[in-house]
Amino acid sequence: MIELGPNRYGKAAIRLVKIVREPDRNRIRDLTVAIALEGDFAAAHTEGDNANLVATDTMKNTVYAFAQEHLSGPVEAYATVLARHFAAMPQVARATVSIREHRWAPIPTDAGPSPDAFLRTGDFTRTTSVTATDDGGLEVDAGVEDLTVMKTARSAFRGFPRDALTTLPETDDRIMATKVTATWHYGPTDLDWDAVHDGILGTMLDVLAEHASLSVQHSIWIVGRAMLERHAALAEVRMVLPNLHHWLVDLSPFGMDNPGTIFTATTEPHGLIEATVRRSADR
Amino acid sequence: MIELGPNRYGKAAIRLVKIVREPDRNRIRDLTVAIALEGDFAAAHTEGDNANLVATDTMKNTVYAFAQEHLSGPVEAYATVLARHFAAMPQVARATVSIREHRWAPIPTDAGPSPDAFLRTGDFTRTTSVTATDDGGLEVDAGVEDLTVMKTARSAFRGFPRDALTTLPETDDRIMATKVTATWHYGPTDLDWDAVHDGILGTMLDVLAEHASLSVQHSIWIVGRAMLERHAALAEVRMVLPNLHHWLVDLSPFGMDNPGTIFTATTEPHGLIEATVRRSADR
Amino acid sequence: MIELGPNRYGKAAIRLVKIVREPDRNRIRDLTVAIALEGDFAAAHTEGDNANLVATDTMKNTVYAFAQEHLSGPVEAYATVLARHFAAMPQVARATVSIREHRWAPIPTDAGPSPDAFLRTGDFTRTTSVTATDDGGLEVDAGVEDLTVMKTARSAFRGFPRDALTTLPETDDRIMATKVTATWHYGPTDLDWDAVHDGILGTMLDVLAEHASLSVQHSIWIVGRAMLERHAALAEVRMVLPNLHHWLVDLSPFGMDNPGTIFTATTEPHGLIEATVRRSADR
Amino acid sequence: MIELGPNRYGKAAIRLVKIVREPDRNRIRDLTVAIALEGDFAAAHTEGDNANLVATDTMKNTVYAFAQEHLSGPVEAYATVLARHFAAMPQVARATVSIREHRWAPIPTDAGPSPDAFLRTGDFTRTTSVTATDDGGLEVDAGVEDLTVMKTARSAFRGFPRDALTTLPETDDRIMATKVTATWHYGPTDLDWDAVHDGILGTMLDVLAEHASLSVQHSIWIVGRAMLERHAALAEVRMVLPNLHHWLVDLSPFGMDNPGTIFTATTEPHGLIEATVRRSADR
Repeated sequence: MIELGPNRYGKAAIRLVKIVREPDRNRIRDLTVAIALEGDFAAAHTEGDNANLVATDTMKNTVYAFAQEHLSGPVEAYATVLARHFAAMPQVARATVSIREHRWAPIPTDAGPSPDAFLRTGDFTRTTSVTATDDGGLEVDAGVEDLTVMKTARSAFRGFPRDALTTLPETDDRIMATKVTATWHYGPTDLDWDAVHDGILGTMLDVLAEHASLSVQHSIWIVGRAMLERHAALAEVRMVLPNLHHWLVDLSPFGMDNPGTIFTATTEPHGLIEATVRRSADR
Repeated sequence: MIELGPNRYGKAAIRLVKIVREPDRNRIRDLTVAIALEGDFAAAHTEGDNANLVATDTMKNTVYAFAQEHLSGPVEAYATVLARHFAAMPQVARATVSIREHRWAPIPTDAGPSPDAFLRTGDFTRTTSVTATDDGGLEVDAGVEDLTVMKTARSAFRGFPRDALTTLPETDDRIMATKVTATWHYGPTDLDWDAVHDGILGTMLDVLAEHASLSVQHSIWIVGRAMLERHAALAEVRMVLPNLHHWLVDLSPFGMDNPGTIFTATTEPHGLIEATVRRSADR
Repeated sequence: MIELGPNRYGKAAIRLVKIVREPDRNRIRDLTVAIALEGDFAAAHTEGDNANLVATDTMKNTVYAFAQEHLSGPVEAYATVLARHFAAMPQVARATVSIREHRWAPIPTDAGPSPDAFLRTGDFTRTTSVTATDDGGLEVDAGVEDLTVMKTARSAFRGFPRDALTTLPETDDRIMATKVTATWHYGPTDLDWDAVHDGILGTMLDVLAEHASLSVQHSIWIVGRAMLERHAALAEVRMVLPNLHHWLVDLSPFGMDNPGTIFTATTEPHGLIEATVRRSADR
Repeated sequence: MIELGPNRYGKAAIRLVKIVREPDRNRIRDLTVAIALEGDFAAAHTEGDNANLVATDTMKNTVYAFAQEHLSGPVEAYATVLARHFAAMPQVARATVSIREHRWAPIPTDAGPSPDAFLRTGDFTRTTSVTATDDGGLEVDAGVEDLTVMKTARSAFRGFPRDALTTLPETDDRIMATKVTATWHYGPTDLDWDAVHDGILGTMLDVLAEHASLSVQHSIWIVGRAMLERHAALAEVRMVLPNLHHWLVDLSPFGMDNPGTIFTATTEPHGLIEATVRRSADR
């Protein structure tokens, strides 16, 4: 006997730009939105019966139409309205709305920040993911991605096991570089989202900068724990950190020292470290 | 109280090329390998104690060193040896080895297929993922990715619900294009991997080509069911299919008909349909 | 005094798919088209006077509208019609149409090649670039890109100069891997384009496979010269070849030999070798 | 008769990170360097004689070795030393060193800017290209790339010619978005490079923000002219600007107005506008 297992579907990579036209300046909201639905879609698969199958084109239309009224504040609020809209459909059990927000800053001019010309900042992308369920449940995650950091001191890696295939020397002083993907889960589902996000990100960056790292795993724990300690709204923090190795270049063939100065940056291969730090009371 | 949650780590994007030098021809094995370990790594996080933390650099060395002896047949066999090697370490509970194999074909020459010059085929990437556990367990998945298909007939989409935000017309004849990511789970863990993979992929392509699609969901079901029906070694098939929309270009402003001929290909936004088809006896 | 220098403009990345519906099978034409115009556009720059400035949106419309009638044969013929259309506009001095054609093959099924389901081959992209000028001139280039080859024998690199900064050992036997971008210029402007392209590409692959390489520069010469010798329609061949280094992995720390077997594939950094081979009578 | 035409070769994508360790803080220099040589390399092509062929591996070593002493100031100065080093080789006629510099900023912490932890800014990449010739000549170009800007007002496009294939409406108010690649040529070859670059970039951003655009061509002229007018060191400015179309979403099917508010961002197809603005006395 063959059966349908877990399934979901939706629209991805919906590119939405909203220009908020205020009296003396504009603001840009620049989002990439994805919708995913789970629910009663078995007949669509096994019978080709599309009666329950909301077109992904309709999802796209909904994203644009709702932006007019509902994208006036934080992305978490907009995602919540969208997720609840889809979860209210009788055939839908869970609706997840995932948003990446691309950041723009006014161009600095001789006359001050431009009211209507902007520069994409490129330092990181803010993310959120909101899931609404047919029983009224709501789960709100947020985070950042594409945030690349480098620690040029206070990073060590030693004391690891050595076997016949181990050649890596121990070091008290290495470069640690990574492109952070961090996702956190909020306890409450109604917060001052922008302020909370700013605060959490501030803590993350502050501790990333300040701590002494004994491994990438150690860094995730220290940073994640601090985020949870300082921000009561957080239930859980998850980080996925590639270890983007910077190897000291051997300049000795040229009669030169290289005391932690000249490195080659690599992306292949890379370490990949993933961990969740959470409140134990949640479990 | 704050605690460490789920965590794993490893090395990703290890690029390995092995040249198998046979008497009258060479063969290329071109792999991208990733290793991920789960186990007793709590102290590495919370204490900075690396005594259990196999360096990811050692994982990379192991991949290269083992390739000399163990990469003589299917990638599943090589992945199994690697996964068991890591799972045998006392601190490791689960070791997962994921491989993408890039395909090369001998260059056709006037004198026949070249013995030592090759062309990367680019039609798809073969994948496998083998997980070994400390209790001797073994799970073998395989699949393909980056396999792009287009059906220029026998694809419809109609009968879907219409609400105030629905504008998509129904159609009996659309282009269906997708970049297939398919993963399947094997029941047995020791098979004639290459022959089995060829057979399963052959079925997938055959049914993708032959069936009449009423939706992408419907296609996954039909194709996945056929794969399970025809291949006893399969326990489950999972597909992730973007719907890469091809929109008919409106040529009427130029006084021209466009009866299903001229399309614009798009990637943003795209539908994204994911489903698992499985044997119910397995559950 | 400040003046306008060289300038051109157009539309790039126009994605066009044409389904040719024949009685017993379909065929896919899948192109990415770019249009670039040079001509009397000074006032558009210096005065903001757009009277001469054909909208790039109109270029896109033209690509789609012309595909209905004119994309029935080789891309060179279609590009020629488009280039001449734009060059006939009074303000246009030169119009260049550049096309990349993506390749699809019928899916093999139990019943033979599918009439209406296709697999993107991914082995290379066929390119052309046609320039028409207002004096009736026509220049036709063609080529391939994204064609990745590897020679696992018959590639050496020795005898190069050594200075205080040279550490590379000489070798009689290395892997040579590259992603070929080849462009050739045709003498005639009306040929049996598909047959000619197949023949030239066949020669390129044949000689790439068969020759013994003393350097990438040497390879370009040998391959380019053979292409010109065997194909009278060719005036010039230009190749841009990255040297995608494959480094032998040092397995000696593990007590293992590595006699040209286990390599790591790299992309950064890479050699980059560019050269033109041509008929001297042309100059 | 078949001959060798124009040729050059070198090493590309050399990834160099230098950590400058000052008493109370570190600084990151993060470069991607490419070297290209032209000269007496005919025998390498036609004879396989490598006696003149500096190994690209040696070029890479040179980049790293020279960074120790010579990468202490602006990239233009470092590129000049490298270019002259290669141009001094007897077989080299022209050596071009192209550098992209990736930007990092200290992470802001509660205790002020971190002395040793950095965030990649991502707003743009600074570029330079220095060419030295065997007669002692030196040409210095610089610029930026990956700088994405959006003007949400003061951008129009009207008065363009209309033919049977024109459907684009005229507009007095559109979004103009582009990813700027700007390159400028300096008259002098010894300047206070960082200060000059900052000044020129400041002008470019200021005028991009302030001007009213009648077309992308018009914008290049206005911005380029201002750069030349305000910066005597500049001989020429070249810009390559994709027009990254933002299309107003038609919300009328949903009974909604959309007065310049909700857009969909696209990348395919895009306009592509290239022009040079220069001092006429230079020609």
